Formats: sequence, structure tokens, C-alpha cells
Amino acid sequence: MTDKRGKLITFEGPEGGGKSTHAAALAQRLRTSGMAVKLTREPGGTWLGEGVRRLLKDHQQPPPTPPAELLLFLAARAQLVGEVIRPALAAGLHVICDRFADSTAVYQGYGRNFDLEQVRELNAMATGGLMPDITFLLDLDVTAGLLRAQNRQSANGGGADRIEREAREFHERVRQGYLAIARQDPGRFRLLDATRPPAELQQAVWEAAQHVIQS
Amino acid sequence: MTDKRGKLITFEGPEGGGKSTHAAALAQRLRTSGMAVKLTREPGGTWLGEGVRRLLKDHQQPPPTPPAELLLFLAARAQLVGEVIRPALAAGLHVICDRFADSTAVYQGYGRNFDLEQVRELNAMATGGLMPDITFLLDLDVTAGLLRAQNRQSANGGGADRIEREAREFHERVRQGYLAIARQDPGRFRLLDATRPPAELQQAVWEAAQHVIQS
Repeated sequence: MTDKRGKLITFEGPEGGGKSTHAAALAQRLRTSGMAVKLTREPGGTWLGEGVRRLLKDHQQPPPTPPAELLLFLAARAQLVGEVIRPALAAGLHVICDRFADSTAVYQGYGRNFDLEQVRELNAMATGGLMPDITFLLDLDVTAGLLRAQNRQSANGGGADRIEREAREFHERVRQGYLAIARQDPGRFRLLDATRPPAELQQAVWEAAQHVIQS
Repeated sequence: MTDKRGKLITFEGPEGGGKSTHAAALAQRLRTSGMAVKLTREPGGTWLGEGVRRLLKDHQQPPPTPPAELLLFLAARAQLVGEVIRPALAAGLHVICDRFADSTAVYQGYGRNFDLEQVRELNAMATGGLMPDITFLLDLDVTAGLLRAQNRQSANGGGADRIEREAREFHERVRQGYLAIARQDPGRFRLLDATRPPAELQQAVWEAAQHVIQS
């Protein structure tokens, strides 16, 4: 064990970009190298946070209002930071998190049009100011990801409906939001093309993570 | 039915002051007078909010961190306002709520020492700026309420421990917080001594509520 503080490594990007896969692969490779690692995810990672996750993912109920959704993501994050991430970092573990504060900045800020400065302040409250040491952004073209849904709908004889157009615009804002915050903080972000071969991506993640861990 | 917006009537104060009882009694009396009433409570009142309530009240799990607790109360409130209270008021119903935004101002602000202005802004975001038309504060002496616990502990051979002293100080800050915000907004608050006979209190509540409803 070491008495040096661990590093916080986060994975961000749209659904389907391979965040969970690459987070797990990095955790495995760090462990194989003898390092102590805590792998977690958002929303979730604690008893309370997993309960919040269930509330957010239950699609049979009236959906959360936009502010309720924002506040629930933040609550899960606050619990994860206080109960898991800070103690693990203090004990010298490296913490790998599948989504973190940037997801709220992008999905609720850019996606749902909440005031970006307000979301930044809320994130700072929820995390107590904790920032990742490095963030991998697995970038993916929106149209490619939505093509399946469109083809399915065309096969059923209909065109893209209003909801689907909204969804595409929402996901486009999310993608552009990610690219914007990555440009604003190039020291922390590593922008990766999620369509590259998985082995290449894993190697790029591994090299960048090692560099941060050894710094 | 009327096309006039309904009134939002809230009950506040420490545990044991009779909020739920007086809220239910007022709802019953308004209904008997032919008025449409929605009676609800916080945290809860929606599917999402009741889920949040269960997360907050489960004492077998690691407790929520202070920011997670604050954010969960706000999330339940945002959902209640968007899904229940605003539609009901717009439909002309009078809404009676057992706890509302003042509880967060007092328990998290005064009680847990979150910045009062920050809590005020968070409440404004969660409610979209909705304020009660009238708020009944059922005020109760802290020492009286905690006496039972002390007597029980003395019977077991011990004095008040550190946790219990903290609890008393917390509840004292809560009570003083309630009295402070009531003084700041005398037009909205009706301060009631919770130890008065229930029938007297019900009559006082009824008269003040009628006055607001007819205004």
C-alpha cells in the first residue's frame, strides 16, 4: 500500500461509446499491475445511489421533471463522493468512474438547457470541489447511433416522429457539449474516437492513465 | 368548479407539533364546505417522491451525506411541484402540504449549517419560484420533546451522550430557524403554539385559511 493519494479517472461520452467496457478493462489492467483500484459508476455505486438509479430508470412511472432529474443525479453523486470516492482516494486507491460530473454538465446543461453556470455550482456542491485527474471522452457520431431506430421505424411504414427528432437534437447538443467542455479543459480530457478498434483504444487509455498515475 | 387559481397552504414545524393532524383536519373541513382540496406531504406525494422518502428513512443503510440529503429533499419537492401542486392549483384546487420549502431552509440551512442563501436559491430552482399563500408554523419547545429520550437514558444508568447533546442543539437551531424565517415573512406565516388545545388550534387554522382563500 502507499500513503499517496489515488487518482480519479473518469469515462464520459454518449451511450454506446464503450465507457463501461473501457473502464472495466483499465481497472483489470491496473490490478494486474499490482495497483489497488475501485471501479464504480454513476448514477449508483452506493446503496443510496443505486436506489436513485432505479427511480430514474423506471419508465413505467411519471417521468422525473427536469429539475427533479438534475437534483437526483447530483444527490447520487454527492453520496458516491462522500461514501466511496474520497475515502478510496485517501486510502491510496485509484478510482475509475463510469460517468461523473461532466455528464450532468452536458446532459442537463447542454442537453436540457439548464444554466451552465448554475449546473457548475451544483456539481461543485455535490462533489465538494473534487475534479477528475483525467477524463476519457469516447466521442461518437449521433446519426450513426440513431440509424438503427430510424431504420426500424421506416420498416414499420413511418418516418421519424417529433419525439425522435427531439431525441436526435438532444443527443446532438449532448455531443457538442462534450466536445465544448473537452476543448475548455484540454489538460484533463483525452478525446478518443469511439469507432477505433477496441484494442487500440484500450492501449491509448492505458498509456494516458499510466502517465497520470506516475505523475 | 372555478377557473380561479387555488391556494397553497403549508404546515411547518418540528416533529410532534401536530402538522399532519392539522393538515388533515383543515382538508376535511374545506371539503365539507364544498371546496376541492389536494392534501399532500413532503418528502413524497408522488411515486418518485415516495421513493426518495424511502431512501431517506431507511436507517439500516449508510446514511445520506449532508449534501445528498439536501439534494434528495429538493428532488422530491421539484417532482411534487411539477407533477401535483402546479396542476392542482391551476385546476382551482386548494393544495395543503405537510412540510414544504421552509423545512429545507430550516433543517438543512439552520440545522446543518448550509449557506442560507444557497439553500434559498436551490429551493427557488426546485419550486420554480412557487411560494405558499399561507404557512402555519406549529411551534414547540425542544426540551419538552426531548425529555422522554433523556428519561429513558437515565433509567438505563447513563447521562445524555454526545450524540444526544448534538441532537438537542440541532433541534434548537431548527426551532430558532423557524422562528427567524417566520419573523422575516409575517405576511405569510401564522405562528401557533402547538401546546394549545387541538380544537382551539383547528379553529385558528380554519379562520386564517378561510381569510386567505377568500382573498
